[in-house]
Amino acid sequence: MKSVYFFGAGKADGTGEMRDLLGGKGAGLAEMTRIGLPVPAGFTITTETCDYYLKHGRKYPKHLRAEVEKNLRRLEKLTQKKLGDPKDTLLVSVRSGSARSMPGMMETILNLGLNDKSVEGLARSTKNERFAYDAYRRFVQMYSTVAIGLPKEDLEDRLRELKSQLKVRDDTQVDAQGWRKLVGEYKEYFKHKTGRAFPEDPEEQLWGAIGAVFESWMADKAVTYRRVEKISGLLGTAVNVVQMVFGNRGKDSGTGVCFTRDPSTGEKKFYGEFLENAQGEDVVAGIRTPMPLAQMSKQMPKVYKQLEKVREQLEKHYRDMQDMEFTVEDGTLYMLQTRTGKRSPSAAFQIAVDMANEKLIKVEEALERIKAEDVERLFYPVLDPKVARGELAGKKLGQGINAVPGAAVGKAVFTAQAAEEWAQRGERVILVRRETSPEDVGGMYVAQGILTATGGKTSHAAVVARGWGKCCIVGAEEIEISASSKQLNANGKTIREGEWITLDGGDGTVYAGEISLVRPEPPKAYETLLKWADKIRRLGVRTNADTPHDARLAREMGAEGIGLCRTEHMFFKDFEHPEKSIERQEAIQEMILADTSEARRKALAKLLPFQRRDFIGIFEAMDGLPVTIRLIDPPLHEFVPHDPAKQEELAKKLGVKREAIVRRVEQLKEANPMLGLRGCRLCIMFPEILEMQVRAIVEAAIDCQKRGIKVLPEIMHPLVMEKKELKILEEATRRVAEEIISQAKVKLEYLVGTMIELPRAALLADQIAEIAEFFSFGTNDLTQTTMGLSRDDAGRFLPEYVDERKAGIFPSDPFQTLDVPGVGMLVQWAIERGRKTRPKLKIGICGEHGGDADSVKFCHRVGMNYVSASPFRVPIARLAAAQAVLEEKKKK
Amino acid sequence: MKSVYFFGAGKADGTGEMRDLLGGKGAGLAEMTRIGLPVPAGFTITTETCDYYLKHGRKYPKHLRAEVEKNLRRLEKLTQKKLGDPKDTLLVSVRSGSARSMPGMMETILNLGLNDKSVEGLARSTKNERFAYDAYRRFVQMYSTVAIGLPKEDLEDRLRELKSQLKVRDDTQVDAQGWRKLVGEYKEYFKHKTGRAFPEDPEEQLWGAIGAVFESWMADKAVTYRRVEKISGLLGTAVNVVQMVFGNRGKDSGTGVCFTRDPSTGEKKFYGEFLENAQGEDVVAGIRTPMPLAQMSKQMPKVYKQLEKVREQLEKHYRDMQDMEFTVEDGTLYMLQTRTGKRSPSAAFQIAVDMANEKLIKVEEALERIKAEDVERLFYPVLDPKVARGELAGKKLGQGINAVPGAAVGKAVFTAQAAEEWAQRGERVILVRRETSPEDVGGMYVAQGILTATGGKTSHAAVVARGWGKCCIVGAEEIEISASSKQLNANGKTIREGEWITLDGGDGTVYAGEISLVRPEPPKAYETLLKWADKIRRLGVRTNADTPHDARLAREMGAEGIGLCRTEHMFFKDFEHPEKSIERQEAIQEMILADTSEARRKALAKLLPFQRRDFIGIFEAMDGLPVTIRLIDPPLHEFVPHDPAKQEELAKKLGVKREAIVRRVEQLKEANPMLGLRGCRLCIMFPEILEMQVRAIVEAAIDCQKRGIKVLPEIMHPLVMEKKELKILEEATRRVAEEIISQAKVKLEYLVGTMIELPRAALLADQIAEIAEFFSFGTNDLTQTTMGLSRDDAGRFLPEYVDERKAGIFPSDPFQTLDVPGVGMLVQWAIERGRKTRPKLKIGICGEHGGDADSVKFCHRVGMNYVSASPFRVPIARLAAAQAVLEEKKKK
Repeated sequence: MKSVYFFGAGKADGTGEMRDLLGGKGAGLAEMTRIGLPVPAGFTITTETCDYYLKHGRKYPKHLRAEVEKNLRRLEKLTQKKLGDPKDTLLVSVRSGSARSMPGMMETILNLGLNDKSVEGLARSTKNERFAYDAYRRFVQMYSTVAIGLPKEDLEDRLRELKSQLKVRDDTQVDAQGWRKLVGEYKEYFKHKTGRAFPEDPEEQLWGAIGAVFESWMADKAVTYRRVEKISGLLGTAVNVVQMVFGNRGKDSGTGVCFTRDPSTGEKKFYGEFLENAQGEDVVAGIRTPMPLAQMSKQMPKVYKQLEKVREQLEKHYRDMQDMEFTVEDGTLYMLQTRTGKRSPSAAFQIAVDMANEKLIKVEEALERIKAEDVERLFYPVLDPKVARGELAGKKLGQGINAVPGAAVGKAVFTAQAAEEWAQRGERVILVRRETSPEDVGGMYVAQGILTATGGKTSHAAVVARGWGKCCIVGAEEIEISASSKQLNANGKTIREGEWITLDGGDGTVYAGEISLVRPEPPKAYETLLKWADKIRRLGVRTNADTPHDARLAREMGAEGIGLCRTEHMFFKDFEHPEKSIERQEAIQEMILADTSEARRKALAKLLPFQRRDFIGIFEAMDGLPVTIRLIDPPLHEFVPHDPAKQEELAKKLGVKREAIVRRVEQLKEANPMLGLRGCRLCIMFPEILEMQVRAIVEAAIDCQKRGIKVLPEIMHPLVMEKKELKILEEATRRVAEEIISQAKVKLEYLVGTMIELPRAALLADQIAEIAEFFSFGTNDLTQTTMGLSRDDAGRFLPEYVDERKAGIFPSDPFQTLDVPGVGMLVQWAIERGRKTRPKLKIGICGEHGGDADSVKFCHRVGMNYVSASPFRVPIARLAAAQAVLEEKKKK
Repeated sequence: MKSVYFFGAGKADGTGEMRDLLGGKGAGLAEMTRIGLPVPAGFTITTETCDYYLKHGRKYPKHLRAEVEKNLRRLEKLTQKKLGDPKDTLLVSVRSGSARSMPGMMETILNLGLNDKSVEGLARSTKNERFAYDAYRRFVQMYSTVAIGLPKEDLEDRLRELKSQLKVRDDTQVDAQGWRKLVGEYKEYFKHKTGRAFPEDPEEQLWGAIGAVFESWMADKAVTYRRVEKISGLLGTAVNVVQMVFGNRGKDSGTGVCFTRDPSTGEKKFYGEFLENAQGEDVVAGIRTPMPLAQMSKQMPKVYKQLEKVREQLEKHYRDMQDMEFTVEDGTLYMLQTRTGKRSPSAAFQIAVDMANEKLIKVEEALERIKAEDVERLFYPVLDPKVARGELAGKKLGQGINAVPGAAVGKAVFTAQAAEEWAQRGERVILVRRETSPEDVGGMYVAQGILTATGGKTSHAAVVARGWGKCCIVGAEEIEISASSKQLNANGKTIREGEWITLDGGDGTVYAGEISLVRPEPPKAYETLLKWADKIRRLGVRTNADTPHDARLAREMGAEGIGLCRTEHMFFKDFEHPEKSIERQEAIQEMILADTSEARRKALAKLLPFQRRDFIGIFEAMDGLPVTIRLIDPPLHEFVPHDPAKQEELAKKLGVKREAIVRRVEQLKEANPMLGLRGCRLCIMFPEILEMQVRAIVEAAIDCQKRGIKVLPEIMHPLVMEKKELKILEEATRRVAEEIISQAKVKLEYLVGTMIELPRAALLADQIAEIAEFFSFGTNDLTQTTMGLSRDDAGRFLPEYVDERKAGIFPSDPFQTLDVPGVGMLVQWAIERGRKTRPKLKIGICGEHGGDADSVKFCHRVGMNYVSASPFRVPIARLAAAQAVLEEKKKK
């Protein structure tokens, strides 16, 4: 096992392709060396070594010491300097570098090789005592904090004190004497804290630094970053030991960062910043303002020209936009790093399309380079980047889970009713609730954003909001919400009803006050790229939409039909005529309170015209495209009022005693409503609901058809677990439909199918396909039942399960990305068995997973006909479907 | 398709084996005719015809009319009488008869052939006008009510009026004139109600009667009976048209019912009753008291001797105890029916063992003849049969679901606490609750029986009570229970705390007052038969037992180990020292309220000695047999107090504010607790619980082993869904166990395994078996998740699903009998995959299904090593396991 890879003087043991083993930085340095760019020499210790170190109780492999020694000697030979040489020491940086970029997450130690003797040599050889001691104090500080773990604040306090003694403001104003004194104080502090002297032996320093970099792989922030970014399967970090070059050697020196194209717009222009007489960390610290590259080109025209050539060479070589770090030491350019540059979502599209057009990459590669998040983030408003960080920090109320990205501003309201009232007055509101329920959908719909104290990314609030692309923060547990006193308390602040708050769904932060937002305009490149995707993909993409508005929106986003039209919101909310919502609510509640089938029918008759009108609107919006309508699904409990005042109100309207309503509400309570009387079980028990809904659908379809609109209704029964059950529902559906069709003397094509969302349905899919003309996988519920996990409750332990530092049982939240080994096995089984019975069985998915890129790819692989996603996730699905085809080609 | 089978004069178209086609009665009549017994002639219309009739909108197959005509002519020829002949009419009975006995559930019409003319002929030919008109009025009444559906009460009112006009009490006192008058009134009433005259045409009468018998197959009571008795797969009822013979022709006539052996004890003696000068229906009506057979033997020695021969002949022929009906007409014996006789559970054992010993049947047949219910009912106390029916009727409070059979008497108490207090004073109590929760187990344990207003056969109350073999009635919705006012109201009566009530778990009836019970002693034949079963079966039988008491009991019942020892009751209840229960409860509650792992450990340390002692008791009772212990399973929510007073009490004891407890209780609330933070998820989140439990088990095992007791502990992790999860648990288990074992310097064998109770675990069983040394199928939860059915809530719709008259989607309650097509597919898959990884994987089942005969047979077929059943169901499992082997042999 070779553990150390050398690079220098135009040759390198490693290559740019060895990212996994050498990390991004190490591979980049090796590759840049190979292609003849000016790179300081050094060596990289592999990520495998890190893995070994972490797995073997923080011990190195036996051969490592010798290998490092050998490469250190090689480096010393090449640079003609010796580490720790009191006359002219070799100085090195020791940097982390993993296979995937984790900016700022791991540790670095610079200027290693200095000690009380060699610092003097450095002063002499550079003829710059201040420079030497500045370098030394930086090293001692970094080594103390990073390798030993002493508190950074204590060291910074000492620097502050020094500056106040010297009566100076900036570090640059501290002279050699000052730095020397500071080094002394640091070392004293070091001894006081650790009980031993600061190590003077450069090799001891080197090993301390290597261990510190390896350790930083498991630091909290690094682990969290990997979890959030879904980075897994890496061995660890590499360690890069590289000869130091100094940008702070005077006017002819400096350091910079540049991108081969503009990372925020994607425009093809050289973009970057340069800070003269400075080291990289000074740029990060932001003490002085760097100059744009244009200015540098005037100040150092020769170096700039060289840099431009590097830019061209690297982009051609890597065939992607590069993010480079460089240092100029006494007029000589050194490239310290190159990596694929991070870019804004819109730049991602621009660059991909431009490079394809420039023939630098293929169209397929352009498609592969766009991530689902790029698409997602393209459409959401964000906090105006012009707002100062400090201002934001002062306004912060708390942090929640960023359920739906984007940002929203509005006046806080604490009930759905208030949201509707305020919105009707033209106010923008944020609905703040402990948790939401279907009763709240009206208020949720009119709100700019939704904030809840409980729940996770798949709670009711999150799922509904995601469907609408509406900013939503959930599980903000540090925010105390009181609906009764209409206020929230957090971070020492109180927000009362009507006071402004701002939600940043991007990171889950909640702010007090009205912070301005901007909404990015999707670039033309977006349209181009998605058209390319559409040409390649075979998987259809539909949308989950319950209203004509959503249907139209989804169509604009490229949806090829509706895969899931839920009908239950229709019982609660008249989206087009909000003032009529109350009639619907009363009717459904009357239905639930009815004792007899006749009374239920009477109440349902009132709902019929409303539902018919809803369906007409949806069919109109989807002219020519299929619309899958799911009959009633949630338990009836969700439709009845739970607070006494509303119960009283309802009692009056229905002319019954409140006790009767309370009793019915009690009766409807279930221990596990998710597994209770819901889904098609409702229509088995109360066939009159099915009859009304089918009537509304078929009458609406006939009405539209007569007006020349092409309708393709697909009637879907949820929560089926047995063929006989579906048989009963299918017969009832066809009986009602055929009666209306024959009375209307028209021809109408429609399908009858089922959701597959229980393991039993998946297992017995061959039997169910005897009846069903289509399957739609409800993978939310299928995940819940297959794994025995309640979406609403999993927040108590699922985070522990997906946290690799804790239990690390699952690679990701199974409600976000389909659990392929478990749930996926059932899906695949059901498809195979279903198609065995009915080869042309139409199969789709309508769970949340239909808008998740990885899950969409799975759907492609198992041969579904389409996925259905919420409107704003339709482009994600289109892209992922194309990427799935490309992945498939590669495997062949 | 031959639809009609003739029998008469020693010949028959059908045979005794054609039960499915001819029904039990038809097959019996054919067979008896064939073997030369005196049987009146007639013909049987097949059950297939019934099926056709019901499926084709109540129409007969085309050829039926001709076939019936042909056979009627044949009957007329044989009897030399003609149906409706005014001089000397042929009279027939038209009776139902299905392949499985459904006593009294379907309809019969007698004396068909009479009309205003033929009745006169009958009077003349029998020289008995009273007899003729009596027969006629019976026919008219039966035809009107059965074939036409007129209300029986109206007709009976007219009979009552007639008797009061005639000033007589008994029907026997009514003379010919009276009956003639009554016939007139009946016919007038018929015309008034139907608008047409009573049919005089005998063939019209015959077809009306045939249709009425077919219809009665779908009558409410028949459908209910089939559901309760789990009778399914039958085509319908046959119709038997048989020449009438009359037991009411005078002193030399009579009618009787007899059994070839005593149906209540099984003793081999001729047993029966005879009523002279009477028809069968008179025996049923119970107006006169019949004589025992012994008396008949004196009164009609010749006929009796003939009957004794028939007895011998039939038992030898059918090789089972027969239940026969006969009529003596003018000194001539006619056999009207023979069928396998119903018998008491203890008679079932006696007869089976006796017949095997007599070599009449084989041992295998003896085993096959015992049903699970026979075993079950053998052990439960029952209402003293000496208590008069009338007395019972007066005391009836209401009806519930008979969750656990047997009967119980005690004083009503309305809280678990009261139950414990009263029981401590030596009182027998019945715990009456709206529903029960694990907090109630203490009270449930001390109660004689349990009555709840809600829930089904698998509610908490039912499951816990079944485990203890304790009488339990659930879902008694008509009984209004108020825990706050400590009383129940039902049927106009009020029962206050401390007043006696009696539960009949056999049929679910609740009575006021103290009704005496008797407990049947299992006969020796039971022991003999179960020993035979043990010799044959290959499947092991263990028990579900949580206490030393249950463990001992189960061992007496033949359990070969514990398959499921739940540990959660131990947190609540000290079964051996009830006064110490409170210490346990406080410790577990302290644990739940703790904020840190340390505080939890401290609380758990208090529980350790209790749990250790519990396990010692169980290991002692199971010396030499394996004991599978499941670590904590239910959600923590179930352990904390929910009523304010108890919360206040707990707060005081823990020295915290009640608000803190209220908040924690709130936090623990889950939307779907069944799918929430429970099972092994608790030990993933709180490893200290696992550590304490494993320590208690291992320390107890070592303690016992040192005292020469052989212990075989099997530590089981519930609700596992993923290999990595089990890996974490297994490592923690072994770490704790090995540490204790090595410190104690002993050797201890133990296994670590898992429950398979989630679809995902079953699907990925091959991976899970890499870690697990055994699988135990938790089919309760596996059924819940596979079918998406909450046991606690399914009561709202599952009855509809298993009612063949309604949806009829499932043949039986999947929580009682394993759903083989769905859940069973997963079980089979998991066994195959698990054994592929680990060929010697030990596999059992510990859900409720382990005590259900059909499910046990499934477990045998799929190759499990053992089933585990509650103590009182252990014998059922032993027997079913043997029957499974016999079924297997037959298939080969």
